[in-house]
Amino acid sequence: MKHMKYWICVAAVFLLFKNLSAQTTPEDKKATIAHFFDESLTNAPIPAHLHHLTKQIGHRISGSPQAEAAVHWIKLQLEALKPDTVYLQAVKIPVWKRGPKEKAFFQTADHMQPMQVLAFGGSVATKGTLSAEVVEVKSWAELSALPADKVKGKFVFYNRAMDATKIDPFDAYLEAVDQRSIGAIEAAKKGAIGALVRSLTLAKDDAPHTGAMQYADGINKIPAAALGTRSADLLSQTLKDDPTLRFSLEMHCSTLPEIVSNNVIAEITGKEFPDEFITIGAHIDSWDVGEGASDDATGIAQTIEALRLFKTLASKPKRSIRFIFYMNEESGAHGGSKYASAVRENKEKHLASIESDAGGFQPVGFRIDGDPQAVNQIKAYSPLLSQYGMGRILAQHRGVDIAAMKDLSKVLLSLDCASHRLFHIHHSELDTLDKLNYREVTLGAVAMTAMAFLISEYGL
Amino acid sequence: MKHMKYWICVAAVFLLFKNLSAQTTPEDKKATIAHFFDESLTNAPIPAHLHHLTKQIGHRISGSPQAEAAVHWIKLQLEALKPDTVYLQAVKIPVWKRGPKEKAFFQTADHMQPMQVLAFGGSVATKGTLSAEVVEVKSWAELSALPADKVKGKFVFYNRAMDATKIDPFDAYLEAVDQRSIGAIEAAKKGAIGALVRSLTLAKDDAPHTGAMQYADGINKIPAAALGTRSADLLSQTLKDDPTLRFSLEMHCSTLPEIVSNNVIAEITGKEFPDEFITIGAHIDSWDVGEGASDDATGIAQTIEALRLFKTLASKPKRSIRFIFYMNEESGAHGGSKYASAVRENKEKHLASIESDAGGFQPVGFRIDGDPQAVNQIKAYSPLLSQYGMGRILAQHRGVDIAAMKDLSKVLLSLDCASHRLFHIHHSELDTLDKLNYREVTLGAVAMTAMAFLISEYGL
Repeated sequence: MKHMKYWICVAAVFLLFKNLSAQTTPEDKKATIAHFFDESLTNAPIPAHLHHLTKQIGHRISGSPQAEAAVHWIKLQLEALKPDTVYLQAVKIPVWKRGPKEKAFFQTADHMQPMQVLAFGGSVATKGTLSAEVVEVKSWAELSALPADKVKGKFVFYNRAMDATKIDPFDAYLEAVDQRSIGAIEAAKKGAIGALVRSLTLAKDDAPHTGAMQYADGINKIPAAALGTRSADLLSQTLKDDPTLRFSLEMHCSTLPEIVSNNVIAEITGKEFPDEFITIGAHIDSWDVGEGASDDATGIAQTIEALRLFKTLASKPKRSIRFIFYMNEESGAHGGSKYASAVRENKEKHLASIESDAGGFQPVGFRIDGDPQAVNQIKAYSPLLSQYGMGRILAQHRGVDIAAMKDLSKVLLSLDCASHRLFHIHHSELDTLDKLNYREVTLGAVAMTAMAFLISEYGL
Repeated sequence: MKHMKYWICVAAVFLLFKNLSAQTTPEDKKATIAHFFDESLTNAPIPAHLHHLTKQIGHRISGSPQAEAAVHWIKLQLEALKPDTVYLQAVKIPVWKRGPKEKAFFQTADHMQPMQVLAFGGSVATKGTLSAEVVEVKSWAELSALPADKVKGKFVFYNRAMDATKIDPFDAYLEAVDQRSIGAIEAAKKGAIGALVRSLTLAKDDAPHTGAMQYADGINKIPAAALGTRSADLLSQTLKDDPTLRFSLEMHCSTLPEIVSNNVIAEITGKEFPDEFITIGAHIDSWDVGEGASDDATGIAQTIEALRLFKTLASKPKRSIRFIFYMNEESGAHGGSKYASAVRENKEKHLASIESDAGGFQPVGFRIDGDPQAVNQIKAYSPLLSQYGMGRILAQHRGVDIAAMKDLSKVLLSLDCASHRLFHIHHSELDTLDKLNYREVTLGAVAMTAMAFLISEYGL
């Protein structure tokens, strides 16, 4: 018995030490974050990945062969990093095609002026050339105040510019985007035959910026297109002298039957709490102009890098980390909804859903929403990222794919970046590889990895 | 007498009120800063100014017709804004010319490999083609440990890369720049016939980055040039297999007689303390490749904008503000020295010297040096800029032109920007207009204007 007591005591001491040594200290966590930065800034394959996504695959609208090529390529990259699982998650998605390039011009008494336009994603075609007068509005109140006969049979031209005095152009974008999303609906309600919308950019150039638009049941579906900002300014100016000028628009876009595409998901299973999940993600699809470099090849490369960084650790994270590549963010976020449905169905516990969709620019921190206590806990991690210039944690996440995880995930976090450069190129032919900076993209990857690591270590 | 007392009392009350109403409150100051942001983000002529400097004038090395054209153009812009004075301040400057493009290659037993090189500013020519073996070093210790016969008659190849793990590449640059500045001196001391230096950039490309270099009295002046990073990697790799390969270099650069050029200075005279000065400045000259867009057309456009913003105020600033455009920052900062000499000579009191020379990128705050009490006072202004994302105030100013004002100005402040993009293009053909973002440049102008305004209002 004496001996037995002795051995129990030895075993207890051994277990205690083993446990203590398994506990990581705050200093260990700092060291791990420093490791992520050093490792990624030195060895991230981000330049090669971005090059492949933008120059080999190119833009990759939902339903395109390029989008499917991206699914395949991402899966291969993930498998090569040997996480615990890699799988596809089927998603039904809408398919929309631009068709031959749009044409537009306006005609005054003595002058024909070509216009730079781009159909909005989901718009109907014009069926030949659509010609009509134009009525310009700068607010919903202005449209609302117009008598129906001033709108009927015309194009409504939404020319409310983004507010240049907003320090963060993302705020100015969110404030102006309603013109694009519901402009066709509101114009059609008053009998308009088309909607023209000033591009959502603060740049003075002539690259039109596309994006998603909506139709409503029971309301006539009219064609809707973006005008480059210079085209918009010229149209507005000319309308002052010649309010009866005729605008002509030709668009050949069409909506095809839905198809099944896929989200791509990789997982590292947590060593202590395998049933608690933290996700890091980005979207696969892009618009069908430019190269989808900032939107969102950046996020794809960052999410692959986050997996690579977790795999450089000596031991697995405490909680499970999922790396999610969503299909179809740009036209309905069906991939994000699908993932959320599966979570609900499987009653999975999600602590945090992190998304990168703010472009390949200087990261400054995160935007967050969720359980107030959890939000406060995460705000307390700010100093760990502040020393790297990425510690700003502000309210209101901006992730479209993670939005469906509201109430399913304790917190939703979107990577926040300096946004001046993003809104010059967003959804336009200007969104190309040369606008990105590899180090800024890399820092964003590390910020997400560090945040996921902290949540995994401490829980919420 | 009674009446007289009454009127004295009335006058005193009147004067007291007059004085109180002239005092601006902290809220007024906040409103003025908000006005600077709104006004500048809406109306700054920065795009047109940057276009003129980069596309009409182009790169403008000290002593070039382009540098003189910039002096003339800047003076005209300032005069149009009607400050109290605009004048030129004569500066003697060195003149160095690159001459016909450099040529370089290395030859192994079976292969001739062209190399991308760029002479450093101030380098001597090669007098025909200079061919020799190459000895590679990655540290001063390595060079020092080499026996003289391993160096004599050879090129020393400095191949210490900038440290990619430094979060701020500016720090990595400052740590690596000694290879460029004194590489030729240290190599010549050991009998080398030329110095080749890995370009100071974290990019993997082949645009060589030039910059200033030094010679020392009594030490042989040997030619020195930058190698593109890909060229440097290839040379390093090939040297491992073939340590006796021969490197050939041809450079036609030359130093011409000194000339007299000018700083350009505008002043708004302070309404309360006209003899206390705050300066905002940038440098006119650039290197002779690219367009000098970030370095430092950005600073020029920002300093002109700062003057424009001060002129939008209803009343003059309390203290005098000078807007200084320095000649010859890149090869000796003779313009900065000249200004400081004049300040010393005229016994002028300078509170703060502010400089922009960190590129056309997202401003994050200021770097500061000077009187500790004054530094603390300025740090207290941080929250007023933090709401705009520009409130970070760190030690160690980085302004080359204002360096001569040490001990003459209470504080030296350099605008601090996200530097990842700068060090991909710095001093190379890549420093062109398309790399800039107008809004980021504008925000930098406002940050300097707001800082000068606060110092002018509160004193130091």
